[in-house]
Amino acid sequence: MNNVYAVILAGGSGTRFWPASRTKRPKQLLALTNDEDQSLIASTLERLEPIVPAERVYVATGAHLLGATRAQLPSLAESAFLPEPVARNTAPCIGWATRVIARRDPTATILVVPSDQHVTDQTGFANALNIAIASAQAGTITTIGIEPTRPETGYGYIEVGDAVSPHVARVARFVEKPGREKAAEYVASGRFLWNSGMFFYRADTMTAAIARHLPELARGLDSIDSAAESSLAAEQEALMRIFPALPNISIDFGVIEHEATLNVVRANFGWSDLGSFASVWEHCARDGRGNASLADCVLVEADGNLVFDARSPGQRKVVTLLGTQDLCVVLTDDAVLVMPRDRAQDVRAVVDQLKANGRVDLL
Amino acid sequence: MNNVYAVILAGGSGTRFWPASRTKRPKQLLALTNDEDQSLIASTLERLEPIVPAERVYVATGAHLLGATRAQLPSLAESAFLPEPVARNTAPCIGWATRVIARRDPTATILVVPSDQHVTDQTGFANALNIAIASAQAGTITTIGIEPTRPETGYGYIEVGDAVSPHVARVARFVEKPGREKAAEYVASGRFLWNSGMFFYRADTMTAAIARHLPELARGLDSIDSAAESSLAAEQEALMRIFPALPNISIDFGVIEHEATLNVVRANFGWSDLGSFASVWEHCARDGRGNASLADCVLVEADGNLVFDARSPGQRKVVTLLGTQDLCVVLTDDAVLVMPRDRAQDVRAVVDQLKANGRVDLL
Repeated sequence: MNNVYAVILAGGSGTRFWPASRTKRPKQLLALTNDEDQSLIASTLERLEPIVPAERVYVATGAHLLGATRAQLPSLAESAFLPEPVARNTAPCIGWATRVIARRDPTATILVVPSDQHVTDQTGFANALNIAIASAQAGTITTIGIEPTRPETGYGYIEVGDAVSPHVARVARFVEKPGREKAAEYVASGRFLWNSGMFFYRADTMTAAIARHLPELARGLDSIDSAAESSLAAEQEALMRIFPALPNISIDFGVIEHEATLNVVRANFGWSDLGSFASVWEHCARDGRGNASLADCVLVEADGNLVFDARSPGQRKVVTLLGTQDLCVVLTDDAVLVMPRDRAQDVRAVVDQLKANGRVDLL
Repeated sequence: MNNVYAVILAGGSGTRFWPASRTKRPKQLLALTNDEDQSLIASTLERLEPIVPAERVYVATGAHLLGATRAQLPSLAESAFLPEPVARNTAPCIGWATRVIARRDPTATILVVPSDQHVTDQTGFANALNIAIASAQAGTITTIGIEPTRPETGYGYIEVGDAVSPHVARVARFVEKPGREKAAEYVASGRFLWNSGMFFYRADTMTAAIARHLPELARGLDSIDSAAESSLAAEQEALMRIFPALPNISIDFGVIEHEATLNVVRANFGWSDLGSFASVWEHCARDGRGNASLADCVLVEADGNLVFDARSPGQRKVVTLLGTQDLCVVLTDDAVLVMPRDRAQDVRAVVDQLKANGRVDLL
């Protein structure tokens, strides 16, 4: 399958993992579990390796993140990075990446994956992706749905429709993050999967879908395409001029959910989107009292805590907890955050407060 | 009263306020409340000023603390510092200080005060001390007892005996730190006061008392005295030779509690021994949600916390709390401690753990 390409989505605002994440250092640039010592985006690339070799991987990122992102992925060529001049949600950047790949190989099948997820079962991951690629190659945009293990309210869900093959079904509908009750109902029904945010398509399928559902985006991409055919400089000029005016919308809302026929691959490979520090704690190795540490810790009668020392190596010093329960303690060179684990989804409130206080250096 | 002298006790092991306090930086060298920006020992000296001018103040400290202690008290002459060669509890150092002062002025009355206490009512403090000085000048070792405001289990108590004058009574007995039930009983009875750890005596009274109750100490001090009469060098030599062999005992157990007649001054001047970070929180100014801060803090939905940033000035960075309740967060250049406020009296357990782990650099 040497016409299979990958696009890793590597934007992000850096709020959910503040103070470790920042506008200029979003989540995917962090090493967030203690079973790996590399950033999430480096793990993402490594995980794709058996399916898509590095020379067919692209990384869609923000221009302001280009340097930090390249530093994490030294095996990729400069041309693998597609820096958006401005953030315009996912439809423009995926549309653009699709055109770039289609110019290289019009028969391309493309898989789009987030850069900041966590997977424990690499073989299961590869198997699911290969099934999804085959489904996409047959001409249907395909997603991966994760079998839910709990009534998670932090994920979107996919309702499964008619079976297509043993592991593939039609998508009946997408559902936004539900409330607790709905989520429990979904999980009990057996008909719902977590939306992994990964999707798979043939370049021509997506190009046609964008033309159908977002004609304005299609026209903008056509112009960039034409410029790219004359020179790299012309492509750059066109990008800077056209990109900011493209529709600011996600590929899900703008394109995929409008498609009449979509496939979903049912999978289960120890997936998590690591949505908050609470989720990081869940996916970390923990001691006998439930403490997870990415730090030099001394713990006395402490239970269920996460300590994450994201200070630069020379700055890391001992963190001691005495008698604390279920806290997250996060340290960077310029800030400390302490909160109960069950408040981890509210970190944005701290970022908002800092913004209100004019502490822009800390964002 | 130009024959009144003070001895400030400035030893300490630096465990109760770890990581802010250390073996080489015990509690009295810290600024522990946010209503003052000087160390506790500097506040102690300032508080004595109206009663005993600086030229009649001595500081009993450990040789290893001499430099750090002098740096906090620049108004005192070098000769005001009495560095013990080794820590031998309070009887030897108070005995020695008493001899040093008695050589200067045989009629001296001496007040001995801890270096690490907190007082809110300076006038009440001065009044109580002047009453105690007068009592001591009449020939009776005198203490100050604080009217208890709660059944504190962290203090020793003094049972009050017969009245001597409106503010002075005999000491019926000293009681060690009681359990919760006993403490409540003491407070309810109205007959018990908190032992402030301050005491007052004429030099000749104490010299005679030591000779009575600790003759071995008296003999050692005699030898040091004789050496001191020949030269400073001889005194130093005698100190180094004799001090380590002196009885390792407190002045309370070794001398004072054996005296048949002791006076206590009943007082109430907003006294605290600041025994733990919980006590520091109590004595700090707090915001509307009960948070006390000696730090650059951003607090979001946080209640009842203490944040104490004891990092060196260039190293202080923002500390943010989200939704935490009743925590203490303490930061130094080389360590962080997080604990519930109600575990603050157990900080020694962390120090013990560090010791067990061989982390001597952190003690």
